Amino acid sequence: MAQQQAGDYRILHEAGLRDHLAGLSDLKALLGGDPASWSITEVGDGNLNLVFIVKGARGGVAVKQALPYVRLVGESWPLPLSRAHYEYLALSKQAQLAPGLVPALLHHNERLALTVMELLEPHIIMRKGLVAGTQYPRFVDDITTFTARTLFFTSDLALPAAGKKEAIAAFAGNHALCKITEDLIFTDPYRIAEQNRWTAPYLDGLAASMRDDMELHVAISRLKLKFIASPEALLHGDLHTGSIMVTESQTRVIDPEFAFYGPMGFDVGAVLANLLMAYFASAGHERTPGERQAFERWVLETVEKVWIEFARKFLDLWRTQARGDAYPVSLFPGEKGAMRLEAERHAYMQRLFTDTIGFAAAKSIRRIFGLAHNADFELIADLKSRATSEARAVRLARGMMVEAAAFRTIFDVTGAARKLRDWQPELSG
Amino acid sequence: MAQQQAGDYRILHEAGLRDHLAGLSDLKALLGGDPASWSITEVGDGNLNLVFIVKGARGGVAVKQALPYVRLVGESWPLPLSRAHYEYLALSKQAQLAPGLVPALLHHNERLALTVMELLEPHIIMRKGLVAGTQYPRFVDDITTFTARTLFFTSDLALPAAGKKEAIAAFAGNHALCKITEDLIFTDPYRIAEQNRWTAPYLDGLAASMRDDMELHVAISRLKLKFIASPEALLHGDLHTGSIMVTESQTRVIDPEFAFYGPMGFDVGAVLANLLMAYFASAGHERTPGERQAFERWVLETVEKVWIEFARKFLDLWRTQARGDAYPVSLFPGEKGAMRLEAERHAYMQRLFTDTIGFAAAKSIRRIFGLAHNADFELIADLKSRATSEARAVRLARGMMVEAAAFRTIFDVTGAARKLRDWQPELSG
Repeated sequence: MAQQQAGDYRILHEAGLRDHLAGLSDLKALLGGDPASWSITEVGDGNLNLVFIVKGARGGVAVKQALPYVRLVGESWPLPLSRAHYEYLALSKQAQLAPGLVPALLHHNERLALTVMELLEPHIIMRKGLVAGTQYPRFVDDITTFTARTLFFTSDLALPAAGKKEAIAAFAGNHALCKITEDLIFTDPYRIAEQNRWTAPYLDGLAASMRDDMELHVAISRLKLKFIASPEALLHGDLHTGSIMVTESQTRVIDPEFAFYGPMGFDVGAVLANLLMAYFASAGHERTPGERQAFERWVLETVEKVWIEFARKFLDLWRTQARGDAYPVSLFPGEKGAMRLEAERHAYMQRLFTDTIGFAAAKSIRRIFGLAHNADFELIADLKSRATSEARAVRLARGMMVEAAAFRTIFDVTGAARKLRDWQPELSG
Repeated sequence: MAQQQAGDYRILHEAGLRDHLAGLSDLKALLGGDPASWSITEVGDGNLNLVFIVKGARGGVAVKQALPYVRLVGESWPLPLSRAHYEYLALSKQAQLAPGLVPALLHHNERLALTVMELLEPHIIMRKGLVAGTQYPRFVDDITTFTARTLFFTSDLALPAAGKKEAIAAFAGNHALCKITEDLIFTDPYRIAEQNRWTAPYLDGLAASMRDDMELHVAISRLKLKFIASPEALLHGDLHTGSIMVTESQTRVIDPEFAFYGPMGFDVGAVLANLLMAYFASAGHERTPGERQAFERWVLETVEKVWIEFARKFLDLWRTQARGDAYPVSLFPGEKGAMRLEAERHAYMQRLFTDTIGFAAAKSIRRIFGLAHNADFELIADLKSRATSEARAVRLARGMMVEAAAFRTIFDVTGAARKLRDWQPELSG
């Protein structure tokens, strides 16, 4: 486990960063020209860290430095710098398992909690593109390659148990980041908590009914226990559309500082939830009725394809690359054995699907009633319209969490979403 | 993780052990008299280690030293000495959580992989007592206190997630011992494996049908995955009746070298399986028909009470000592919340029951078709009678594993066992 070495750490401002990079010959050459001429801009818009874009005469890099506290809240909420270590560890593993789908790693300094990466240009944060109604034709293939490969190859289907246990232990120290998820996703949105907020007054009634909904609280508690105690695979841990940078032809997954060994459905569910939120938010971004129909159709098709392609790729890997200790092929000999194992693979995927939609629901609800909201909804200026979109997302999410068994396939999810497109919730206030 | 320090390790024979203990003033005083006068006897009858009983003028101690290989097999099967570290760690934790139910720890030497414990006298290995038909009136209360407390207090119901993750990591290095279980319990008995054996020729047909039973192989594979990747609580990991020493008034759980964070049902299931095997073996130990009826009634009542009392104590702890991050009480406020949480506690126990009987079945089958058999059956001299008892145990076990849903309560298990008491299997040969 990475120990914090507080004595060596300092927050790098522009001058400090310039000096640090100038002292690294590879990076100095990559950037090119006189270090004094490099442009350095702090662009972090996330919740936790400093992010700089540095450009020189020849090239540019992105630099991420962890702060010893939560940037969104301030020094009153300390957070260990060791998260930079786990992010680096996860990014290295993802680069190996899903080459070309994460930014190239150029430099890591453990003591400064600093990582230098390939500058992604002209990529934008996918969420911004979705708010604008942009379609991303590469997205399904790329994100399902990323999730299928990073999850499969770190699971018990691919790893011997001993190596898996060591890998779990290597990420055990990242528990402060897990705790954020445990509190902000799996607990606070369902109770009175100072940091909660929602689109008031319109969702006041819905917020109160969620706090009073004991079936929902049982469902979220089961998901929380699964999140805490089911180290199925190495998760990205925060795989929303703000952690994905895109062009129409490229996809890059960034920011795996929440990485740990957890339930696979949490990562896949994050992708689905954020697409579903983009879908429900879309009505609020219309300037003329129906202008985003093609986009909305694409988003729901993307939801369907993300699950279907993920499942297909994951199953293919299982059939061809199963070197782990789970489901030993020696127990399934001959044609009869092969058929029975194949049936079990599908049963396994069905269980994973149920987990996935539960986690997707949890990810939606936290963005509407918890601390951290997302731009999909927040950029809908008209509060009543925003609340309407949010209430539709919540209605679907509640069903996915409490009546998970009613959603047998991903088409049940998109079908329900489609039906809610123009549903008019009763709003408070 | 404990590193092996091979340079300092040496196998202690009588003289070496005498010198080592004589150099420890507390132990020297406890034993009393001239070290040269101490009697030292190697009594290990387990599969892995050396065990000495040392007696002096005043008192006695038990000494356990790990060997760098599996004692049952020899130097051709190496096994890390670090297991003594994990055993010591687990024993310390169990002593804290279940005081009086494990032997007192007197000394531990990490480099020698050596632990000195309270000498348990006149305790005997419980399995021997069961073979003899002895009833143990303290057993239910003691073993359910041990299992309920050690499992609950190391679970997410009692521990914050951060502490739990650190505890999981602290035991991650014990994977060589886990691997033994993964292979010998969850894999080999279901396929052709050199180390398998069974009561031939009588069980040849049953062994072949088990190797061909794909439903059973799916069930054992699901259990194996749960064993590998569900760190619910700190398990003893080998809680059969050979790991329990008893008198009629005392119970002591020994030998937790297989300890790791795993699924709770594995420990409770081990207890149930070994009682069920004692029950099915009992017919083979009769000298006159019916002479062990009272014992057999007691064994099945004990099976029932072990689950019922375990569940009752576990639930009581959950209601009163839930300081963990799972199922936060703040999500279940008021009378309505309390009622819903209580219902969920029962649903949780029902899921744990299903796990438990699956693991119990796995523990039975491995003792009949795998490498390590047990005295309950092995001491039945008449092979046909032995095979008959074993086939009855296997028939119940297969049902518990494949049709787990048909066993809703522990009375379904004992009812099925009772019906099989005089069932005559078709034997081969």
